[in-house]
Amino acid sequence: MKIEIKLYNTLTKRKEIFKPLEDNLVKIYVCGPTVYSHSHLGHARVFITFDILIRFLEYLGYKVKYVRNITDVGHLSGEILEGEDKIILEAKKEKLSPWEIVDKYMFEFFKAMDLLNIRRPNIQPRPSQLIPEILEFIDKLIENGYAYITETGIYYDVSKFENYGKLSGIKREELIKHRVEPDITKKNPADFALWKFVKDENYPLQWNSKYGKGFPGWHIECSIMNLKHLGEQIDIHGGGMDLIFPHHENEIAQTEAITKKQFAKYWIHVNFLTVNGEKMSKSKGNFITLKDFLSKYNPEILRIFVLRAHYRSELDYNEKAINECKEILDKLYRTLDYLKKVNKEEDTNIILEKVEKLKTEFLEALADDLNFPLALSKYLEMSDLILSNIESIGKKEAENVYQIFFELGNKILGLFYTKRESKLDESFIKKLLEIRDEMRKEGLYKYSDKIRSLLNEYGIEVFDKKDKSEFRIKI
Amino acid sequence: MKIEIKLYNTLTKRKEIFKPLEDNLVKIYVCGPTVYSHSHLGHARVFITFDILIRFLEYLGYKVKYVRNITDVGHLSGEILEGEDKIILEAKKEKLSPWEIVDKYMFEFFKAMDLLNIRRPNIQPRPSQLIPEILEFIDKLIENGYAYITETGIYYDVSKFENYGKLSGIKREELIKHRVEPDITKKNPADFALWKFVKDENYPLQWNSKYGKGFPGWHIECSIMNLKHLGEQIDIHGGGMDLIFPHHENEIAQTEAITKKQFAKYWIHVNFLTVNGEKMSKSKGNFITLKDFLSKYNPEILRIFVLRAHYRSELDYNEKAINECKEILDKLYRTLDYLKKVNKEEDTNIILEKVEKLKTEFLEALADDLNFPLALSKYLEMSDLILSNIESIGKKEAENVYQIFFELGNKILGLFYTKRESKLDESFIKKLLEIRDEMRKEGLYKYSDKIRSLLNEYGIEVFDKKDKSEFRIKI
Repeated sequence: MKIEIKLYNTLTKRKEIFKPLEDNLVKIYVCGPTVYSHSHLGHARVFITFDILIRFLEYLGYKVKYVRNITDVGHLSGEILEGEDKIILEAKKEKLSPWEIVDKYMFEFFKAMDLLNIRRPNIQPRPSQLIPEILEFIDKLIENGYAYITETGIYYDVSKFENYGKLSGIKREELIKHRVEPDITKKNPADFALWKFVKDENYPLQWNSKYGKGFPGWHIECSIMNLKHLGEQIDIHGGGMDLIFPHHENEIAQTEAITKKQFAKYWIHVNFLTVNGEKMSKSKGNFITLKDFLSKYNPEILRIFVLRAHYRSELDYNEKAINECKEILDKLYRTLDYLKKVNKEEDTNIILEKVEKLKTEFLEALADDLNFPLALSKYLEMSDLILSNIESIGKKEAENVYQIFFELGNKILGLFYTKRESKLDESFIKKLLEIRDEMRKEGLYKYSDKIRSLLNEYGIEVFDKKDKSEFRIKI
Repeated sequence: MKIEIKLYNTLTKRKEIFKPLEDNLVKIYVCGPTVYSHSHLGHARVFITFDILIRFLEYLGYKVKYVRNITDVGHLSGEILEGEDKIILEAKKEKLSPWEIVDKYMFEFFKAMDLLNIRRPNIQPRPSQLIPEILEFIDKLIENGYAYITETGIYYDVSKFENYGKLSGIKREELIKHRVEPDITKKNPADFALWKFVKDENYPLQWNSKYGKGFPGWHIECSIMNLKHLGEQIDIHGGGMDLIFPHHENEIAQTEAITKKQFAKYWIHVNFLTVNGEKMSKSKGNFITLKDFLSKYNPEILRIFVLRAHYRSELDYNEKAINECKEILDKLYRTLDYLKKVNKEEDTNIILEKVEKLKTEFLEALADDLNFPLALSKYLEMSDLILSNIESIGKKEAENVYQIFFELGNKILGLFYTKRESKLDESFIKKLLEIRDEMRKEGLYKYSDKIRSLLNEYGIEVFDKKDKSEFRIKI
């Protein structure tokens, strides 16, 4: 691995050279969705960003163990998590059980991730699988003086954790006064729930514990899923920027209070996606779901779109931007197609060296804290160079260039995976047969017969009637 | 609901009239796969069978709540479950963590089920989500004298359950002596593990309990997943025939010991799938995975294949049978295609009544304990009737017949969901352009231009070179 990667670490507030804890292995955890609603473009931005990071690491020869969770309990609604469990709220609305809501939106999410060619995590754990482990960890927090029990739940005492605030960079004294989860039984406004007691027998998501019936807090879940599947120390912890505080700050407070080791070495956060300059929100009605987007556009367009801004900058979604991305994607495919068609036998050496240089610059751009816009511009520069020399280069050179261009786009950017052959549908066959009908009328039977044989070869049965032919598609 | 369904109940050993416990709601649980290996044709047979049952119930107006589990711990290898956890064995072989094995094969299973158009269950629970509930239930079994603790685990005492053997029909006295899970600490040979103790600190799938560290037995898992998601009593419990004993017999013993109510009203079991007359097994090398099958064939062919035998008979997979199913599927699609093409304006009434009669016979065949071969023959009779009268019937009648034919095939048999338009791939375009090149040589520019415009309209860019044209597919 000759290339040195630098990543901006939210924890240290600066770019740092990336070096995994164990030689060649990268342990990475990304906070996944709470499955109470349709996945949207904001999710896609976060998970495509980490997908490219992971592909890049794998391209450079690292072995990546990637865990991304599915939150199925304990994520409360409201800005300061003061409301009800999001899944239970939705279950009431849809008149389904919370477990049915989880399955419904979880599978929709899985499908969208597959369509977007996002490398599947090695493990996708759910907190409902880890209730015993969560409770055992709470035991330890209580034993070590970091947690206390009130009549409403078990809370983490943020005043006990010396480094509270180290991720978000908010001053510890201010942070302790920062109110989350309004509850009068708490010692400090910023104390957060590890376990919430439930008194209602019919409350659907509850488990027994020696402390009383209840459910886990959202933050403790991620601490435990990390510990279970990746261990006490991981290399990269990621998520959307909105998770820095309180979610990730609290994960650190929980985990490090017990392990006494630095939890994640690098904390990486992806900025927001806006729609026509505005924050995406249900109330504004500008919420674009992945289901909607993917029903209209080739999914690769969204992967290009994510490259338009640095992951730490806001990224605006609008129709013009998407159309530009479509053009870019077509240009990239055109580059591959044209390279494939080169058949000049002559040995040339016109662009290969420049392509190699641009490849290095492309990799360096990504290595510099995933500079997506620079990497994309280098890649497009490579495309321009190829297209403007396509008539001059020979077959051998074209093959070498093809390999480089395809590899960067496919392996690292995750492109070139959709099929382009499905556009000839029934309406095409119908129109082709109309042309053929005209030919028949003019007596050009030689060619009308050839077209019929060809269609037949591809499973289309043609029936010639007097003026007009018909067809059906065979299995 | 005019149609009365009869189902063969393994519990009573006879066909019974189906009547759900709560008016219109059908609660159904089917044992899902243990995800330690590729899903195979035998899985597909079981899950397609229940899929048709569920589609049929929904067609008749029932509301179906369907739970099918994913077993991710506790299923031991060997005929009498005497071996190691199947997932841990595979994890060692593939040098992955057991949780990575689970995710790997679980997602492969999900994908195959989707490709086969198997209606997704409302909930797909995993035993790893239910460890606390399993342990609480074990408490109750111990308190009530149905379970005892030894140094190797907690076992169910089959001699304490009066009705032990009622499902498999094996005499209770014999059954109690039937050895499962050889363990010298057990009271009766047939006693089975509810919880197995683990002494090795590094054993990967273990949980704490007040009895000692360990993992749950395979049978208790299904009892608890039923209780959690469907309640104490369900309508239909299903699975492969190999699950009758000990798995389902033990589920009954566990659940009914505590609830004192009849657990499942109807027990339905699907017979084996053989390959060229032999039982499918890894050692024989005749194991056909769904991945392999689906890479070669249209998935609808497998749905037709399942209809060839009654679900309680063996079904043999062989190339001839699959080719016949392909023919059948094509015939069914042809029937739909021809009906769509009818354009005679004349009002006719030639076959509609006969079609209605065949529809009733089709539904009655399914209602009679899912008589798949009879239902299929009625459906094919309908297809023959339509095809032999296709020239005589008018448009209106064709539309009415279409609706019936499509609805039965699509809603109940789960057919007609694959796209047939994807067969015109790049090689087709290449060959069409070869025909066009010949036309150009003969000066038939009027038509060669039309073909080019048509291709362009469908996103194919054509480049005319001297002798030969080339193309590329645009995004």
